[in-house]
Amino acid sequence: VRDTEKISESTVRRLSAYFRALSDLLAEGRVTTSSYDIAQRAGVTSAQLRKDLSFFGHFGKRGTGYRVEALHEEIRAILGLNRRWRVAVVGAGNLAHALSEYREFRRQGFEIVAVFDVDPGKIGQEWDGVRVEPLTRFDAVARERGVDMGVITTPAAAAQEVADLMVAAGVRGILNFASVKLQVPATVSLRHVDMAIELESLSFALK
Amino acid sequence: VRDTEKISESTVRRLSAYFRALSDLLAEGRVTTSSYDIAQRAGVTSAQLRKDLSFFGHFGKRGTGYRVEALHEEIRAILGLNRRWRVAVVGAGNLAHALSEYREFRRQGFEIVAVFDVDPGKIGQEWDGVRVEPLTRFDAVARERGVDMGVITTPAAAAQEVADLMVAAGVRGILNFASVKLQVPATVSLRHVDMAIELESLSFALK
Repeated sequence: VRDTEKISESTVRRLSAYFRALSDLLAEGRVTTSSYDIAQRAGVTSAQLRKDLSFFGHFGKRGTGYRVEALHEEIRAILGLNRRWRVAVVGAGNLAHALSEYREFRRQGFEIVAVFDVDPGKIGQEWDGVRVEPLTRFDAVARERGVDMGVITTPAAAAQEVADLMVAAGVRGILNFASVKLQVPATVSLRHVDMAIELESLSFALK
Repeated sequence: VRDTEKISESTVRRLSAYFRALSDLLAEGRVTTSSYDIAQRAGVTSAQLRKDLSFFGHFGKRGTGYRVEALHEEIRAILGLNRRWRVAVVGAGNLAHALSEYREFRRQGFEIVAVFDVDPGKIGQEWDGVRVEPLTRFDAVARERGVDMGVITTPAAAAQEVADLMVAAGVRGILNFASVKLQVPATVSLRHVDMAIELESLSFALK
């Protein structure tokens, strides 16, 4: 396996797509498959699939294809989904509530272990067994529960302060839903989710 | 401008990133910029940026760079953001509520003009001036209000039925948040948003 630093975000995105294609194949009871089949389900060319997998070692055999279960497990491990990740969400609004109800997260190993807000009207609410706590408790709770990842769903104006809190508490990865660019140290991984991008892809197709 | 059918989804995704970089440059009061500057803000190479833009015509001048405002307008038009899109959301849960509060949508021309559900407890609620209506009214309302795009935030089991309703009502683009693959005619554009993919990109980086 090469240095993961050199693997682009779009390669990881495609690995996620291959992982979903293989999950579907498993659910269909398929034992072996071809690079063509996986690639087509993931919306890429077979050449692209083979190139992406070649970064991580040798999979499959010429002429006999891939064993679905083995490749599924390999990609699961490459994506870091063969363990549990402890996630803390800051900003107990509708989006956070939707994320806490999203079964796919838990199924893929992402467990929301803490939710925080500054609004006294939200603090104390219980969501799926997790109580909304005051943001002042972030550091203590994150360390106590071994939080790996933080999700920011606050208004844009509060997001950088929350990111700083997360970094100070030892959180190593941050998913930001707020509409603002955040600064974090190079040792912390940061991803920005911009919901409008998906609608832009539709408007491009429809215009 | 070449046939948009041949432009890949990842190219469109990068155009969205260039559009955001140019919006930031505009906000900073910059008049001209370089391909290097835009590319770096968007997280790609200058060569990639120039290649992507070359699909749509000739922008900028060798040695003098790009005019920020002109390129911003060009990409806005390419992405189809220089008009208003009328969006209907089906499934009045937390995610739909979060989307209806998301200011970036409206700012970029996506207007939620209707929200539907089958739950009598939700029907009649008013969100930001839009009343939640019974799903049985979808066809009539979509035609009356000229809905262009549909957003599905229902449970997976209901999503295909909702997509069929949308297609029958003349909706041309569908954004699906439900965890299930949908079938639509080739004349309808379909995008699937899988929130877990962003967390997978973090787990890959952290593992």
